[in-house]
Amino acid sequence: MADTDQPTALDLPQMDPLPEATQSYFDICQDKLGLVPNVLRAYAFDVDKLNAFTALYNDLMLAPSGLSKLEREMIAVVVSSENKCFYCLTAHGQAVRALSGDPILGEQLVMNYRTADLDPKTRTMLDFAVKMTRASAEIEEGDRAALREAGFGERDIWDIASVAAFFNMTNRLASATDMRPNDEYHAQSR
Amino acid sequence: MADTDQPTALDLPQMDPLPEATQSYFDICQDKLGLVPNVLRAYAFDVDKLNAFTALYNDLMLAPSGLSKLEREMIAVVVSSENKCFYCLTAHGQAVRALSGDPILGEQLVMNYRTADLDPKTRTMLDFAVKMTRASAEIEEGDRAALREAGFGERDIWDIASVAAFFNMTNRLASATDMRPNDEYHAQSR
Amino acid sequence: MADTDQPTALDLPQMDPLPEATQSYFDICQDKLGLVPNVLRAYAFDVDKLNAFTALYNDLMLAPSGLSKLEREMIAVVVSSENKCFYCLTAHGQAVRALSGDPILGEQLVMNYRTADLDPKTRTMLDFAVKMTRASAEIEEGDRAALREAGFGERDIWDIASVAAFFNMTNRLASATDMRPNDEYHAQSR
Amino acid sequence: MADTDQPTALDLPQMDPLPEATQSYFDICQDKLGLVPNVLRAYAFDVDKLNAFTALYNDLMLAPSGLSKLEREMIAVVVSSENKCFYCLTAHGQAVRALSGDPILGEQLVMNYRTADLDPKTRTMLDFAVKMTRASAEIEEGDRAALREAGFGERDIWDIASVAAFFNMTNRLASATDMRPNDEYHAQSR
Amino acid sequence: MADTDQPTALDLPQMDPLPEATQSYFDICQDKLGLVPNVLRAYAFDVDKLNAFTALYNDLMLAPSGLSKLEREMIAVVVSSENKCFYCLTAHGQAVRALSGDPILGEQLVMNYRTADLDPKTRTMLDFAVKMTRASAEIEEGDRAALREAGFGERDIWDIASVAAFFNMTNRLASATDMRPNDEYHAQSR
Amino acid sequence: MADTDQPTALDLPQMDPLPEATQSYFDICQDKLGLVPNVLRAYAFDVDKLNAFTALYNDLMLAPSGLSKLEREMIAVVVSSENKCFYCLTAHGQAVRALSGDPILGEQLVMNYRTADLDPKTRTMLDFAVKMTRASAEIEEGDRAALREAGFGERDIWDIASVAAFFNMTNRLASATDMRPNDEYHAQSR
Repeated sequence: MADTDQPTALDLPQMDPLPEATQSYFDICQDKLGLVPNVLRAYAFDVDKLNAFTALYNDLMLAPSGLSKLEREMIAVVVSSENKCFYCLTAHGQAVRALSGDPILGEQLVMNYRTADLDPKTRTMLDFAVKMTRASAEIEEGDRAALREAGFGERDIWDIASVAAFFNMTNRLASATDMRPNDEYHAQSR
Repeated sequence: MADTDQPTALDLPQMDPLPEATQSYFDICQDKLGLVPNVLRAYAFDVDKLNAFTALYNDLMLAPSGLSKLEREMIAVVVSSENKCFYCLTAHGQAVRALSGDPILGEQLVMNYRTADLDPKTRTMLDFAVKMTRASAEIEEGDRAALREAGFGERDIWDIASVAAFFNMTNRLASATDMRPNDEYHAQSR
Repeated sequence: MADTDQPTALDLPQMDPLPEATQSYFDICQDKLGLVPNVLRAYAFDVDKLNAFTALYNDLMLAPSGLSKLEREMIAVVVSSENKCFYCLTAHGQAVRALSGDPILGEQLVMNYRTADLDPKTRTMLDFAVKMTRASAEIEEGDRAALREAGFGERDIWDIASVAAFFNMTNRLASATDMRPNDEYHAQSR
Repeated sequence: MADTDQPTALDLPQMDPLPEATQSYFDICQDKLGLVPNVLRAYAFDVDKLNAFTALYNDLMLAPSGLSKLEREMIAVVVSSENKCFYCLTAHGQAVRALSGDPILGEQLVMNYRTADLDPKTRTMLDFAVKMTRASAEIEEGDRAALREAGFGERDIWDIASVAAFFNMTNRLASATDMRPNDEYHAQSR
Repeated sequence: MADTDQPTALDLPQMDPLPEATQSYFDICQDKLGLVPNVLRAYAFDVDKLNAFTALYNDLMLAPSGLSKLEREMIAVVVSSENKCFYCLTAHGQAVRALSGDPILGEQLVMNYRTADLDPKTRTMLDFAVKMTRASAEIEEGDRAALREAGFGERDIWDIASVAAFFNMTNRLASATDMRPNDEYHAQSR
Repeated sequence: MADTDQPTALDLPQMDPLPEATQSYFDICQDKLGLVPNVLRAYAFDVDKLNAFTALYNDLMLAPSGLSKLEREMIAVVVSSENKCFYCLTAHGQAVRALSGDPILGEQLVMNYRTADLDPKTRTMLDFAVKMTRASAEIEEGDRAALREAGFGERDIWDIASVAAFFNMTNRLASATDMRPNDEYHAQSR
């Protein structure tokens, strides 16, 4: 397990001092979220890596999309549940609780999304994300057709696929480096 | 299967005209590689998504690292073999053939990396990448210790983990959208 | 999903009135826990089935044993995490939070027990429970020897095996009938 | 392997003398079956554990139910085949041979139940039991609906689920402790 | 299921009359075994296919080898247990019972070979056969080294590998065509 | 890895001199293919084993059949892709490239046959071969019915099953012995 001084099991000290833009970004996180997410601290040993990660993250999770922020967080959690990623389940489980105002929904997506009372469109979206996680090589036209029949457009399908793919990346980076979520998440939005 | 006019099965037309910087970047690809990789064409419906992807790709695969470009491409291929991703096996299998000057090595990594005659350090690196792909939740300190004993440093471990994680993302995005590799790769460096 | 009137998806009405001893038992639950666990309500269509279940449950989880109540609850949660059982993760995750006074430990066992900072004896116990869950046919003398070397006695091994086996039963009954945990568990001991 | 003096690999000596009620029960087994099943001998180190186990076993396998005793034994065998439990395949394979009068049916359920010539209702029941064993978290309303369409009632579904769940418990306890079936079963009802 | 007139689910009538050499071979089977194995009847629609199969079978299972006939039959059964092949488990389970004079050994290899009381050399042989069946791509020099350390020579390793590979073929052909074992096997050598 | 003097990791010297018929056969291979396939050199330590193998191989892959030679080679490659067999993917991937005149098709079958643009009949055939490879015990009448509906006759089904079964044998023998494909295959028909 990572010791308390570091966000991962790797000894990669944070840039010191942080570049000005990074420090501003971290300050904004602290103000808005009450914490700097450890994933950002983990990347903060290298400014280019940090910036590349945050640019992709922000485009996928925060930029305009046919998918709501809650839908994107729901994908994050079901993918992370398949991969049993402690970091992402903690951080994005909290996001689902907060955005949905439904703490039990957050728990259901962490534990077994099939127990959640979802509308068919959302369920189709999450089934696609789970198949991408378990057996991406077996996705075929019929799987995309199911998304279209559920009401998703071409760009929506790209976004579903991109978000599900992204958490298959971050889950693995987090588990491979023993990245630790900020303790604050656990008790929030219960 | 995607029809010949599009790089994926999704109907997401390329920006027209391309932004100037994108056009320049594609021109450079055409000059240096003889082709514009279809993954770039696939992202070219949205400039922010394209730029976020290329920034991350270029940082991971081309920026200075303790890992050689060949080592990074080897990770790409063994991860893609686990995930049976046609796009990435084709494009990065070619890269291994070209960078190593050993076409059979490229085939072995596509088919079954355990048949390749690898030095123990490289084998340890690829075993870590495969475990991350198959069972990332089971990676523990002992797995990282094996990398350190093989001679990798902290930053190297981050880079191995980041590259392996990245291809777990791109493999899934490619399979989910039926992304097609450029035909030119198949015959190159044989 | 079960509707709100019933603890499972099966239409098996509760005995009405409850037998006197059952009513007393439910009253005690209400007093001590603030709720009657839905698993008891699910069994309450048949007094013999209810009594057989509670006798076994109480012997395994509450009777004197070389294992503490927390250890038994920890086994319950890691087995239920393998089986992705919403009911048992909810109810026994709460029990771990309450008995340990460590809410994060409860989350770690739900999400991925390998991320928890466990002493080696506890880890050996949980690894045995997980192997029983995933691949019981492959348990051999070496697995029992590992428990003995960690300090467990013959009777302890029986108890570990019995508790892990029991939750492999209840997880499956709960999932097969869509048994729903009481809502109260989710917010407790956070 | 357990030595010949003990029914399991654990050194848990039988109560000596046995409580009077236990001795009577074992005497009845000896009279009616020609043997005391080793699972009872295995539990006989503790009277409460023995009684809890036998009460549950007798309720599930012998009490009145919409399922015949043969149907319950068939579930026992197909679940045990998935889990490759030597004890339960031996004891309950014998029970299927005896109750059905069809020794080949017993073998088919041990080896691969899909080869047996079953009526559709029975096949649906066994498919449900196998899905519960392999992937209980994926059971949903459609699976219960299939049982209802095959002609099973609410209470029957509970009983199918309970029996399948029970053998997922006993298979694991038997394998975890290397519990040995009585030799007599092997040659019976051939 | 195949009807009683045919050894498989395919409508491939036996040559009529059988070629003289085939008829003689079948007569010898009838005399020595009391039956013509259904696998031979299944192939008897084409003399070249029948002869190619029997030549390979006889070389592997009956010709001189460092492996005894019992050892070869033991491999057949453990491979067939992994593949859950009703035909091969029935026919070769009987062969193990007959050749070993130990009916319980036959049952253990059908049900779970890890419960059998095997000498370490035999166990190593069967573990290799099982790994070949489950994950042949992961066999490496260490696996062959384990066979050599157990006392097997180069030719023995070839024979172990060939027999294990052969039953991975026949198991699949039998299951794919619903090939049925002769009823006589079931009660023999009990 | 096998050293360069031997076709496998086993020290089984070739017969010296080769029997006259064997020498003639090898000479024909050299003339027609430009090489003696290493699988034949691997078997050449024993004339009976070599002859039994070649008789079966030639019957399955070269004799008249309702399946074209290309169809049989396509089955060989998709089975070998499931099993990740370096030898068979190399040799039979080359055969698909040569017989089809479509090098990309060969690559698709090696990497992920679902990406190939196949007619429905061929796809049904390959799906059956893959199910035989992954889960032969689950093949039932419905799977054979799908082949019949796609236009295959009884004898064709036997041939599909036989070829798929055969490569499940050879894949495992090749991986178990570290059999090496001739280097010449890699660059051919690109």
